[in-house]
Amino acid sequence: MNYRFANRMNKIPRSFVREILKVTDDEDMISFAGGLPNPQSFPVEAIKDATSKVLTQDGDKVLQYSTTEGYHRLREYIAERYQGQGLEVGVEDILITNGSQQCLDLVGKVFLDRDDGVIMERPTYLAAIQAFGLYEPEFHPVPLLDDGVDLHALETTLKEEDVKLFYTVSSFQNPTGITYSTSKRKKVAELMGEYNTILVEDNPYGEIRFMGEDIAPIKSYLPDSILFGTFSKIVSPGMRMGWIVAPPEIMEKLITAKQASDLHSNYFTQRVVYQYLQDNDVDRHIQSIRKLYKLQRDQMVQSIRKYLPTGVKHTSPEGGMFLWVTLPEGVSAMELFQLAIEENVAFVPGETFYTEDPEINTMRLNFSNSNVEEIAEGIKRLGKAIEKLQAN
Amino acid sequence: MNYRFANRMNKIPRSFVREILKVTDDEDMISFAGGLPNPQSFPVEAIKDATSKVLTQDGDKVLQYSTTEGYHRLREYIAERYQGQGLEVGVEDILITNGSQQCLDLVGKVFLDRDDGVIMERPTYLAAIQAFGLYEPEFHPVPLLDDGVDLHALETTLKEEDVKLFYTVSSFQNPTGITYSTSKRKKVAELMGEYNTILVEDNPYGEIRFMGEDIAPIKSYLPDSILFGTFSKIVSPGMRMGWIVAPPEIMEKLITAKQASDLHSNYFTQRVVYQYLQDNDVDRHIQSIRKLYKLQRDQMVQSIRKYLPTGVKHTSPEGGMFLWVTLPEGVSAMELFQLAIEENVAFVPGETFYTEDPEINTMRLNFSNSNVEEIAEGIKRLGKAIEKLQAN
Repeated sequence: MNYRFANRMNKIPRSFVREILKVTDDEDMISFAGGLPNPQSFPVEAIKDATSKVLTQDGDKVLQYSTTEGYHRLREYIAERYQGQGLEVGVEDILITNGSQQCLDLVGKVFLDRDDGVIMERPTYLAAIQAFGLYEPEFHPVPLLDDGVDLHALETTLKEEDVKLFYTVSSFQNPTGITYSTSKRKKVAELMGEYNTILVEDNPYGEIRFMGEDIAPIKSYLPDSILFGTFSKIVSPGMRMGWIVAPPEIMEKLITAKQASDLHSNYFTQRVVYQYLQDNDVDRHIQSIRKLYKLQRDQMVQSIRKYLPTGVKHTSPEGGMFLWVTLPEGVSAMELFQLAIEENVAFVPGETFYTEDPEINTMRLNFSNSNVEEIAEGIKRLGKAIEKLQAN
Repeated sequence: MNYRFANRMNKIPRSFVREILKVTDDEDMISFAGGLPNPQSFPVEAIKDATSKVLTQDGDKVLQYSTTEGYHRLREYIAERYQGQGLEVGVEDILITNGSQQCLDLVGKVFLDRDDGVIMERPTYLAAIQAFGLYEPEFHPVPLLDDGVDLHALETTLKEEDVKLFYTVSSFQNPTGITYSTSKRKKVAELMGEYNTILVEDNPYGEIRFMGEDIAPIKSYLPDSILFGTFSKIVSPGMRMGWIVAPPEIMEKLITAKQASDLHSNYFTQRVVYQYLQDNDVDRHIQSIRKLYKLQRDQMVQSIRKYLPTGVKHTSPEGGMFLWVTLPEGVSAMELFQLAIEENVAFVPGETFYTEDPEINTMRLNFSNSNVEEIAEGIKRLGKAIEKLQAN
């Protein structure tokens, strides 16, 4: 049979990260390539207790179909947590999703016709390019500076292009680790209102701050915007539990799209996660993750300074799971990747995080899923690979 | 802010079923409206054991990110089950999804550009209209006869229209309960090949046959086609575990779409379901569901014959969860619905299952989620409502 696929399938880049993960399965490999939380942080015993409890108390309901919006008490918990951070969010503003990746898909479905304008940070989260890409929009990249998006470039793009959405990872961005300053958050909120553009704020790492002060999401300055959250980094990514916060008119469309996409998110797991949150000191658990990742991040920063040549620049994130490295001008991270694999260390070449005109001398390093010894050794190996590349 | 949604959002019908389910939450209401399995059939204790086991043995991995394709051993189990039924299906032909509803979304994403032709059974599964509808195809309805699709109408449509997909629920169809005969299955397979059209065969109820002989899916006569399956009707719908079977070239696209949609299905639950399947006699469990539903189906058929006027026709399904009722010509099931609600009995008016020109005198009755006493009483109430309507 001769298959006739939809046009959109030609527009999506193959995930280089997915290809890399195949290479890095080797036991001797130290991998800074993935974006995995440290499994040491998973509350296995507490989840076991929570599961046993919900099945014992309410087994028949827990295994049955449920509502598209998600488990009411879980949504209530999330809303109250936001309220504690000063955000005005009610239970009806929250839709439970399959991790925040599904938030991207649902927002694309609800908003994007072919060729609609979407502003993306430059560089940006690869899987957002893929998720939105399937709705065939026109991407407008706007550069990131140390304290968030380049406001001048943002305003110019908003002025010159018809833009429906601006997608940002405002705290400890994937891939760069960059966080928007408070003043920049306020200014972005203003611009969105001025140019009638929907802000889509993805915040998977916000809770994983291990230095500095907590900063409120941009949504706190712009109630009429979309915010994504997830339990992937603080409870378990394998459970695929995320959520969207959105104002009523948008929420109605999102629910319709969610229903058509998969009826509702796994209700069994929603109940387990809620029970876990009820029965445990979640803030203490988050503190322990922060502590763990700070050690790993510090080790990576120190090792970079020790083992990589002086021409190499890097971000120093105050949270999250990633650090961004810029090699000297003209050096190709993709070429380095081949040599690094020979030294048994892996990373993701930065070019995969650009919608166009990639900066080929950049790379993303993950520090959450390696212990401090592995980090020191891995960066040392990376130093060797850079040396080899420069000797060529 | 003035919201600019995507065009596709205007094309999707609101789910009338969802609206109905709100009305039928009342305790006194006997509802034949939903499509829920009987919770009596949920293996609560066995799931509790399975969960405890996977978390104890492999907690760190069970809670971590996993592969887009799904848990390898679960896919192997599914493939082997098909092989036992004589289908040539390998592990690499299977992608784990969030229930079979997500199969619909992924197939829409991979195949459908705006105005592409899709043949739907008439009537058809409401949520398939919604899922495909978001990709803005042109629907071509083809009538169902007692033993499956009207072959003549199917061939005429294939000849006259450019059709990419034919969507069928080949066994115990939702909403009608109709099952394709073996000869019709073979003929459909031939026609698909002849007209280069992809068969999309949804088979959520195939295992729930309580009378007659098992019939192989159409896919067994047409390897180059797509088949959906689910654990919703035999283990738990709340867990949202389904799968797609597809040939390699299509599978590659489906995996790309799945990755963009939500990275992968809940890995924790995949492991739990697999453990459950390993440690229990699944066939015996399925037998007990068949037995339960047969009693309920028999009660419904008997009650219809006893309490509904002779002009009322109905299907007598050999499996599944639904039965289709046709009222005398000109009688509106939607009008009946209002009177039925007053009598505290609910159903779904048939018109919601048509892509166009609905037969307004039809209705869907679910028999899986009421016990035999409720079924007798509910159909009696329905009889009263029909009497009232005819007296008007």
